[in-house]
Amino acid sequence: MQDYSFKPVAIIETPFREKFAIPRQAGIVTAAKGRVVLHGEAAQPECVEGLEDFSHLWLTWVFHGVPQGEWRPRVRPPRLGGNVRVGVFASRAPFRPNPIGLSVVKLDAIRIESGKAVLEVSGVDMMDGTPILDIKPYIPYSDAISDVSAGFAPDAPENKLEVLFLPEAEAALQARSDGDSVRELIRALLAPDPRPAYKQAQTEGEYGMLLYDFDLQWRINGNRAEVVDLRASK
Amino acid sequence: MQDYSFKPVAIIETPFREKFAIPRQAGIVTAAKGRVVLHGEAAQPECVEGLEDFSHLWLTWVFHGVPQGEWRPRVRPPRLGGNVRVGVFASRAPFRPNPIGLSVVKLDAIRIESGKAVLEVSGVDMMDGTPILDIKPYIPYSDAISDVSAGFAPDAPENKLEVLFLPEAEAALQARSDGDSVRELIRALLAPDPRPAYKQAQTEGEYGMLLYDFDLQWRINGNRAEVVDLRASK
Repeated sequence: MQDYSFKPVAIIETPFREKFAIPRQAGIVTAAKGRVVLHGEAAQPECVEGLEDFSHLWLTWVFHGVPQGEWRPRVRPPRLGGNVRVGVFASRAPFRPNPIGLSVVKLDAIRIESGKAVLEVSGVDMMDGTPILDIKPYIPYSDAISDVSAGFAPDAPENKLEVLFLPEAEAALQARSDGDSVRELIRALLAPDPRPAYKQAQTEGEYGMLLYDFDLQWRINGNRAEVVDLRASK
Repeated sequence: MQDYSFKPVAIIETPFREKFAIPRQAGIVTAAKGRVVLHGEAAQPECVEGLEDFSHLWLTWVFHGVPQGEWRPRVRPPRLGGNVRVGVFASRAPFRPNPIGLSVVKLDAIRIESGKAVLEVSGVDMMDGTPILDIKPYIPYSDAISDVSAGFAPDAPENKLEVLFLPEAEAALQARSDGDSVRELIRALLAPDPRPAYKQAQTEGEYGMLLYDFDLQWRINGNRAEVVDLRASK
């Protein structure tokens, strides 16, 4: 069968610099903001005319960190505790025959910067630097299906941890101009417990997570996630 | 920017052998049935294990009839009467920088035929023979957005024509084992008036439409679509 080749129309900038930090689906962490920076001919402002009438967009993108060809017929979705297998097409796992991702995001603003279109969006679930193949309007009459059965993932992941900011972390947040939105993002990322399923029974442990320009230091203390500090990183 | 190359995982068989016949979005013509025939390594039955728990699927596909590179920054969506332009990314037009289509379809059945997976689906809006790049479960908590504004396409196209089957057409339908579902499909395709916007003011005219193995002959008579005959074609 013939191959099809695509050139990205944009790169998305997100807070997520490593896989561990990324929300499991788009939309659920509304504090996760991104910038879709259009590229080449697709960056002409004409290409996004009228997009301001839509509140939500589909982004089709590439799991660019995943080497092509590395997939198995069955995967273990985190929602099933990581030890039950389902077919790769019954999952949204990144390791799939074609590593294509699909996310609905909220469109917050359209900017024209040096003559090129940039979309400010929220609810993103991609790694920083992810190549975007296509942008489409979200059309409720065809996309918002109300009468659905959805196997192992009927509802959003629940919040399992209380999130507490320790004094040093709080001071670091207050020193940032974007402190409030970063605090909200950290809370939303840690509350559902981002640890792999096999680690979630552990009631202590120290973790790091690369977000924006810092390394988030946090630890588990019983059923609390304690944010220890935000350390500058590069 | 780096190109990404994908090999189709499946081909979809649909009733639609020409563009004119294709519903404007997936899901709205539920009588439009298709068969997603998986291919190569992706056809292993393991790849679709657990998919039976989901009622709806996302198909990511290629507008394979569209020559690559043939796009303009602005397009004229049929929903705007065909004479207002919007940016290509504010539309779902096939002529876009990467000719990628996205459709949610209903999963009716999973079959294993000669050891290969075949998905029976309904609500399709692709040309017969369209290459499928990816299959994902529809997950309501991330995909079904309820509070949406959607510019020029807030609701499904309305039905504009009454559809009447003339005796010869009715006889041809009754001679088919799939006559009832074909009748329902024809009604659903003609009622919203598939003619291009600039022709919709015309109160007469004869048309043909290639569906399945026949050429559908129909005509406009005032605000009625009269189905004249189903002629064998090849």
